[in-house]
Amino acid sequence: MSVTHPAGFRASGVVAGLKSTGARDLALVVNDGPSKAAAAVFTSNRAKANPVLWSEKVIEDGRIDAVILNSGGANCFTGAFGFQTTHATAEAVADALGVAAGDVLVCSTGLIGVGDQSFRDAILDNVPPAVAALSGERDGGADAALAIMTTDSKPKESTIESRAGWSIGGMAKGAGMLAPGLATMLVVITTDADLDAATLDRALRAATRVTFDRVDSDGCMSTNDTVTLMASGASGVAADEAEFTTALTALCLDLATQLQRDAEGASHDIAIEVVNAASEDDAVVVGRAVSRSNLLKAAIFGNDPNWGRVLAALGTTDAEFDPYRIDVSMNGVMVCREGEPGDDRELVDLTPRATSILIDLKSGDATATIYTNDLTHDYVYENSAYAS
Amino acid sequence: MSVTHPAGFRASGVVAGLKSTGARDLALVVNDGPSKAAAAVFTSNRAKANPVLWSEKVIEDGRIDAVILNSGGANCFTGAFGFQTTHATAEAVADALGVAAGDVLVCSTGLIGVGDQSFRDAILDNVPPAVAALSGERDGGADAALAIMTTDSKPKESTIESRAGWSIGGMAKGAGMLAPGLATMLVVITTDADLDAATLDRALRAATRVTFDRVDSDGCMSTNDTVTLMASGASGVAADEAEFTTALTALCLDLATQLQRDAEGASHDIAIEVVNAASEDDAVVVGRAVSRSNLLKAAIFGNDPNWGRVLAALGTTDAEFDPYRIDVSMNGVMVCREGEPGDDRELVDLTPRATSILIDLKSGDATATIYTNDLTHDYVYENSAYAS
Repeated sequence: MSVTHPAGFRASGVVAGLKSTGARDLALVVNDGPSKAAAAVFTSNRAKANPVLWSEKVIEDGRIDAVILNSGGANCFTGAFGFQTTHATAEAVADALGVAAGDVLVCSTGLIGVGDQSFRDAILDNVPPAVAALSGERDGGADAALAIMTTDSKPKESTIESRAGWSIGGMAKGAGMLAPGLATMLVVITTDADLDAATLDRALRAATRVTFDRVDSDGCMSTNDTVTLMASGASGVAADEAEFTTALTALCLDLATQLQRDAEGASHDIAIEVVNAASEDDAVVVGRAVSRSNLLKAAIFGNDPNWGRVLAALGTTDAEFDPYRIDVSMNGVMVCREGEPGDDRELVDLTPRATSILIDLKSGDATATIYTNDLTHDYVYENSAYAS
Repeated sequence: MSVTHPAGFRASGVVAGLKSTGARDLALVVNDGPSKAAAAVFTSNRAKANPVLWSEKVIEDGRIDAVILNSGGANCFTGAFGFQTTHATAEAVADALGVAAGDVLVCSTGLIGVGDQSFRDAILDNVPPAVAALSGERDGGADAALAIMTTDSKPKESTIESRAGWSIGGMAKGAGMLAPGLATMLVVITTDADLDAATLDRALRAATRVTFDRVDSDGCMSTNDTVTLMASGASGVAADEAEFTTALTALCLDLATQLQRDAEGASHDIAIEVVNAASEDDAVVVGRAVSRSNLLKAAIFGNDPNWGRVLAALGTTDAEFDPYRIDVSMNGVMVCREGEPGDDRELVDLTPRATSILIDLKSGDATATIYTNDLTHDYVYENSAYAS
């Protein structure tokens, strides 16, 4: 159900011919209201795709009618022609729906540099079929979730119900380039709660900060990431902001861990939990540094509890801690205690996919968890062959 | 010849039993003077091995008699016992040579957490044989270069002659964890020029800043890196500082590129040259960001000129440039021009091992080159099996 689960939304996913496989590659999500309040967050990469440049403007007034998303080409570094393609796409959707182009958000994902005339034609020619296929039923949301996939092995969807009478639905794609400041990640979240744009913006930023922003699969930040939240108000319920933020955060975490579990070529999902940090920033900095150690990630691929690589990585940060007092546990075994060898590393069983690294900085009471993956032969294979 | 090429030095490399292969694993380099001036630079990692903690003190007075180096164990995160091992090692060398322990620099490389009683015994028991084997001939330097190898496939040596009558010799080890702030890299450089410690320190910092510090093979920074420079003054020639620094830089670059060419599992040596940057710092920041993109490195392994991944990486930096004005060339083909697709990417031949990525930021006149490698199946294999 995902994005069509809350009342007031229709969605579709059609074949525009952008994917060489002939799979669905053009998705549309429409908010039928009565409210059109919305919020969005974008990649912090300075190299932004044309749809991001467009959509940053569209969201400024906190109101959108629809989001159109394509896979099969990033429309990034495609110059003025690429930007005109994005503009024309929004115009085509607006014409078909009878709304303003400035209320149509656009998202793309795929290879950077792809966005020529044939790309433009494929999208524009298939906006009418996408509009015609719009459905508020289960299939509409499911087709949209399929259409945004790239190297994802499966669609990612999530829903949450509130006893207060509103619900949230979401879909996501992303399998490589998962990194802070968002990942190659397109996410659309819908709710039938009645909330204004400012509240949606606060809730979305609070939720993404501790979920999508803490997935760091391979340290690479995308040019196209966009998370959009639309509220139709169709439930007629003005949700409590705190309750809504909590529910939204839970839904984002569910989608984020679905992304992690489907990361390109990964064989371990690694949760790096940093505790007793002097500040949350310190905990995040340390977690990220560890999550970016190729040496550690390769060791975990080989089921090798090489804790020295954890310490070598965190030693590169300027977070507050004494490196010779740190404890490190892997899957529950404290392999490093007070900066010295702890329990026997042979006790660590790294064969399960779910992997836990717990780092105790002993410098305060702040905590953060970073979600990453191991570095595998399949990662190298998939990413050396992506463009071909 | 390497470290024994300049007059006034003897070296040896013996089998202490630290390597399971039975290969040489304990090296000693002695300065017989008349001058004992020296300088050293160390890893900037806060997690420092015990020999680094010791050697940082030893070098403070700019004078050392000898350097002892072991492979087969990092003696890092081994606590007070590990530090006592380092101290005892220096004492043993000092006793055998009739010098002060505070003038003996100690280096280790190998697995973090290794440094128990058997490690200590192996080193201490083999200091006398290492002293007995000291030789100023070619074999002495060659044996030392072999004894510091870990996953290196071959020893790295270099020499330079000055017409002024002095020479420099150097040896290096390092194959993984090659990153800024030095790599898992032990380097010993000798010269028979007559220079005081302050001059050596200036020259060494100037040389390493643009050579070893710009090798970023896999983004991982070691806990043990040390580059030591000793001057015997045995040529009787007080070298011109500028000429010496130039020669030292050339020698360091030679050793640094030998490290790059022998990086674990690599199939491409990638020189990322950033030109027309607003500052040298900007050029380095951009080069490093690109050198750390696993996606780009995997693409180059697959001979895929995926320039979008260059732009996605540099967009994560705060260097001064307009991402939509940048040119990117790969092996001489300008695949991205003014932030748009440039010449046909099919023209790029990435089959040679030597790979060039040229990034024109069009923001000033500063330049820097970062040396990195591709991300390969062999890298993953070697680093997932290192501890076993």
